[in-house]
Amino acid sequence: MTNLLKNLEWRYAAKKMDASHSVSEEKVDFILEAIRLTASSSGLQPYQVIVVTNPELKAQIQPHAWGQSQITDCSHLLVFAAWDNYTAERINMMFDLVNEERGFINEDWENYRKMILSNYTRRDAETNYQHAARQAYIGLGTALIAAAEVKVDCTPMEGFDPAKVDDILGLSKLGLRSVILLPLGYRATEGDWLVDLKKVRRAKENFVIEMK
Amino acid sequence: MTNLLKNLEWRYAAKKMDASHSVSEEKVDFILEAIRLTASSSGLQPYQVIVVTNPELKAQIQPHAWGQSQITDCSHLLVFAAWDNYTAERINMMFDLVNEERGFINEDWENYRKMILSNYTRRDAETNYQHAARQAYIGLGTALIAAAEVKVDCTPMEGFDPAKVDDILGLSKLGLRSVILLPLGYRATEGDWLVDLKKVRRAKENFVIEMK
Repeated sequence: MTNLLKNLEWRYAAKKMDASHSVSEEKVDFILEAIRLTASSSGLQPYQVIVVTNPELKAQIQPHAWGQSQITDCSHLLVFAAWDNYTAERINMMFDLVNEERGFINEDWENYRKMILSNYTRRDAETNYQHAARQAYIGLGTALIAAAEVKVDCTPMEGFDPAKVDDILGLSKLGLRSVILLPLGYRATEGDWLVDLKKVRRAKENFVIEMK
Repeated sequence: MTNLLKNLEWRYAAKKMDASHSVSEEKVDFILEAIRLTASSSGLQPYQVIVVTNPELKAQIQPHAWGQSQITDCSHLLVFAAWDNYTAERINMMFDLVNEERGFINEDWENYRKMILSNYTRRDAETNYQHAARQAYIGLGTALIAAAEVKVDCTPMEGFDPAKVDDILGLSKLGLRSVILLPLGYRATEGDWLVDLKKVRRAKENFVIEMK
């Protein structure tokens, strides 16, 4: 079995983290770099990752995330926050960056820009936010693998009040909306009901459908 | 740089695939296994992966995906298809499977089942489908890494008519809705405008926000 499958088997959503054990900056940077490099629709990367290490902010978030202990016991709380809308400014920012980095302007690329500008800016903000939020889940899938590779535990959380988290972190004024929380830390030696339980997935024949 | 970051750098959305070069079943199985093992909300795995190798089905899909050549040039077309709704039957299927595999019934787990049943079955189908579709993007993020690890090219596609694809593949009667297409194959030696262009991502300081 390759390391990738071993890492996917190893990881689980830690239910109790050891508050005395911090993740090193090197490992956090590795996880963030993997997220930064992964794919997104049209390469727009329509989200940002907030790294919350401030204890007071974590404590303020906790009651709005069902009081889950990992929020305060983790050393780094990642918040995936999607663009609240696709605006012409944001779309042009990414297309301009691509031109700048590549050092030339490609005609097909400019035609593609026009199509994206036309299609996205006429959609309502909620539709655009939903699309952006989906891209953050590609980042989440990537983060889970990166964290497992360096044996860092993490717990993806959808169970929180996004409006409250946006408020606590001041995300609205940045044009962002929180989508997923991902505390990074290390599993505690005691108090985690899930750690020793078998990981259960549907068998391949109930997950994959072949059309030959 | 670790293999994970190298693989993320290596991959790109192939624009032209070599129709004469098929991906081995072993590599396809590896990619599917990575998707199967990854995380999903409450472990429900609310999507299936359709593997289309039938040339007629691929040809029928192509015009509804902007005529993109990878649809027919790839050897395996993966279709991520999310549950059209969370039903009590589907939720119970996964909770029962977990109990069966673990060999015992955990009281906390049963309380969690009740909460999920109560919350999800009272939401409308569209809200539930949107939530399920997000989980498929975790699978997509995982698939991109798995494919790169075995040097298989792939091209994530949102640009297609889901209703038409659902119709061609008969997904509605399975209670599924197509979310993402992912052709697997090998890049062609000619005809791919993107292959030699630099991958561009925002710098870390424009993607990550630290709150210390």
